[in-house]
Amino acid sequence: MPKQFAASKRLPETLAAIVGGANVLSDPAELAPFLTDWRGRYQGKARVLVRPGNTAEAAAVVRACHAARIPIVPQGGNTGLCGGATPDASGEAVLLQLRRMKRVRSVDLTNNVLLAEAGCTLLEAQAAARNAGRLFPLSLASEGSCQIGGNLATNAGGVRALRYGVMRDLTMGVEAVLPDGAIWPGLHALRKNNAGYDLANLLIGSEGTLGIFTAAALKLYPLPQKTLTCWLGLAAPAAALILLDKVQTAFDARLVAFELICPLAGELMARHFPALPLPQAAPWGVLCELSDCSHASDLTMRAETFFAERLAAGELLGAALSRSEREQEAFWRWREHISEAQKREGISIKHDIALPISRIAEFLQRVAPRLQAQFPGIRHTAFGHLGDGNLHFNLSMPDAAENECLLESEAIANRIVYDCVDELGGSIAAEHGIGQLKREMLCHYKSPAELAAMRAVKNALDPRGIMNPGRVLP
Amino acid sequence: MPKQFAASKRLPETLAAIVGGANVLSDPAELAPFLTDWRGRYQGKARVLVRPGNTAEAAAVVRACHAARIPIVPQGGNTGLCGGATPDASGEAVLLQLRRMKRVRSVDLTNNVLLAEAGCTLLEAQAAARNAGRLFPLSLASEGSCQIGGNLATNAGGVRALRYGVMRDLTMGVEAVLPDGAIWPGLHALRKNNAGYDLANLLIGSEGTLGIFTAAALKLYPLPQKTLTCWLGLAAPAAALILLDKVQTAFDARLVAFELICPLAGELMARHFPALPLPQAAPWGVLCELSDCSHASDLTMRAETFFAERLAAGELLGAALSRSEREQEAFWRWREHISEAQKREGISIKHDIALPISRIAEFLQRVAPRLQAQFPGIRHTAFGHLGDGNLHFNLSMPDAAENECLLESEAIANRIVYDCVDELGGSIAAEHGIGQLKREMLCHYKSPAELAAMRAVKNALDPRGIMNPGRVLP
Repeated sequence: MPKQFAASKRLPETLAAIVGGANVLSDPAELAPFLTDWRGRYQGKARVLVRPGNTAEAAAVVRACHAARIPIVPQGGNTGLCGGATPDASGEAVLLQLRRMKRVRSVDLTNNVLLAEAGCTLLEAQAAARNAGRLFPLSLASEGSCQIGGNLATNAGGVRALRYGVMRDLTMGVEAVLPDGAIWPGLHALRKNNAGYDLANLLIGSEGTLGIFTAAALKLYPLPQKTLTCWLGLAAPAAALILLDKVQTAFDARLVAFELICPLAGELMARHFPALPLPQAAPWGVLCELSDCSHASDLTMRAETFFAERLAAGELLGAALSRSEREQEAFWRWREHISEAQKREGISIKHDIALPISRIAEFLQRVAPRLQAQFPGIRHTAFGHLGDGNLHFNLSMPDAAENECLLESEAIANRIVYDCVDELGGSIAAEHGIGQLKREMLCHYKSPAELAAMRAVKNALDPRGIMNPGRVLP
Repeated sequence: MPKQFAASKRLPETLAAIVGGANVLSDPAELAPFLTDWRGRYQGKARVLVRPGNTAEAAAVVRACHAARIPIVPQGGNTGLCGGATPDASGEAVLLQLRRMKRVRSVDLTNNVLLAEAGCTLLEAQAAARNAGRLFPLSLASEGSCQIGGNLATNAGGVRALRYGVMRDLTMGVEAVLPDGAIWPGLHALRKNNAGYDLANLLIGSEGTLGIFTAAALKLYPLPQKTLTCWLGLAAPAAALILLDKVQTAFDARLVAFELICPLAGELMARHFPALPLPQAAPWGVLCELSDCSHASDLTMRAETFFAERLAAGELLGAALSRSEREQEAFWRWREHISEAQKREGISIKHDIALPISRIAEFLQRVAPRLQAQFPGIRHTAFGHLGDGNLHFNLSMPDAAENECLLESEAIANRIVYDCVDELGGSIAAEHGIGQLKREMLCHYKSPAELAAMRAVKNALDPRGIMNPGRVLP
């Protein structure tokens, strides 16, 4: 049931008094880029766009909206894939951006912690760490634009989660503004803290529905001194799973990434980015990264031996090991352009799913015939973080007109995919979140106990329902 | 404000109908061992002790108590250090133990996950993993008796958290019974899952105040093939911090544990466990464990070179590297007996604190003179997980009569210690939790925003206040 929000004609003046008139935008042309999502799937309206310059201003903005019962939609780099940062069509919402808060406040080498404000891009945080001789390991295709606040709000994952974990694992403490405008002062540099409930992890991944992050204390790691990127050719996903187990046993924490790439991803890349050559021609690919912090490491030699043995045993169809940093970057550039190639091909139905690793091959075998039976000729790309059991599974038709029809039947396609995921013990949302895209699906697949607990927590922390309403939960 | 609980004369019969009469105990002699804590600091009463044999029975017990508004105190191995599992003196509570649910349901090598029931001891879970050729890395002094349910409830840490994280990091999914008796079906084997709020992590570390764990999906790791335990002698804690940074940079994820041991711990050990010899005589000690999953590892050679260089540079006073598994075990046995030696010396005032690693030496310098000024002659042991910024800091007087007086002034001693912790950006509870020991301290040091959010969540999930009432929050 949607809440009723009071109109407040004086709100723009109130907000301008907090952040300054130049930081309250209402010109439709200025707002336009922020009222649609990166994929162009959602379109919304907003009352105003507000840009606080510090935590106190952000808290005052939330307090004003709370008092007036005005909904708030927080937005980071606007790179989300589930419409979580796009306001609805009502035009009631205040769009809140923190890009003015983009400072890296400190890089502390003794505690291995970096204090970043929410509006700092992921790339800026990575660079600040690297300049200080440390690694901040979160890495995503959108890292040039996505912001730390959004990374927290969606519990971002990315390509190196296999070794270093997701945003939740990479965060020591957070500073946030709660729905009533109170500042949550959790910006500590502590590696253990059992003083009370873990509310930071409740906020992380709640997609702006329980509060707004203003800053985070992020974990730093030793900078790898040797990195080896390997492009491996395989006959089928099942072979990739066998390989994953062997690589993990042999390399343990030196295994950083293990990405699966399907044949269709290769075709789309060849069509839309012919200048980026495929490192290895084989039906299926795996992009595997190994790293070691020691200068004296024998990583390269051990990897060469290891993959030569796999080739000799017929477990691989081919293997290309990077011989330079440039080649490493080229391998990753190819991988990171898959989403863009998919976008150039036309709108697709995207699924970001998690499965027990052991069920991934089974999932692909089970879902394909069900989809073909419903949508003859349908194509899927399947790629992503195999080591985390996380696949990006996108559906489209080869022909543009047919694709239009497919999009109209999105609900049917989603049910086929998510039913398979559910049957195999998986999750309908691995790392992109729920937003507005999967809200109804969440209600369908979550147990009543889980939904009731989520609603109870939402109502407890945001009784007025002003924080990103209608996202995650209906 | 304490809630009023209804009396229910028929409750024992109701519970017996669920779990069988033999599993509802009310004989005072049978209950006695479970009505006091391991340290002997707290003493309580219970209406009955109930032992469900499966999740459905546990849920039915909670539903019955919920209907009758009877408080429930969950208890695992009863090894907690903060009185979180000891009922209060009212005799209203039902004491709930899950030791009958002690099965390891499965060890899944492809997904690297072990499904353990809540009543399984940590040692049993470790053994099941090792027998399958994997590592479940959680390791604590009480591992022979503490149970997985208690490890989850307190978000246990222990000696290898530096490499593998705390219980929260080691858990993929949980099954729990919520305060209304609903079963939370979260026992998945997924490494990423952003489908809705992170309620599992809210339950983990909530010390039985938001629900009762019945089972967990625990993460497994490759079994280390080479392990090296090093006992290092140092002049002062500041030297240990410099060493930690160098070891981390050189060994990265191969550094598993980095434990600090103060001079007084050595004295207490010599007095109470003279048969366990101190591996290295030096004012301060560090017990450092390195491991590698590769048979072909040059770990030993690299560690020998590394520590020889530290010795040559005067950064260490001495170094003993384990030459056999037996010697490794002896080093660890020494470390794990410190708490027992402390106990044999008499009751002490225990503090389990977290600090930014960089502030640990400063903390010790700051707190000692303040304590001496208030309690002349007071002694402290300071030992624990330096790599996590987690110290165990215990206070006692050398003389038994004086120790009695000290215990009567516990509140003053606590304030001195926790004020120092707070001034340096630390936490009053690193890994042992709050229980009843630190409840008032939590209210003193937490911000109003944090306390209000905790209360809101508690009231939302447990509106009748039956789950472990008066623990964590007053």
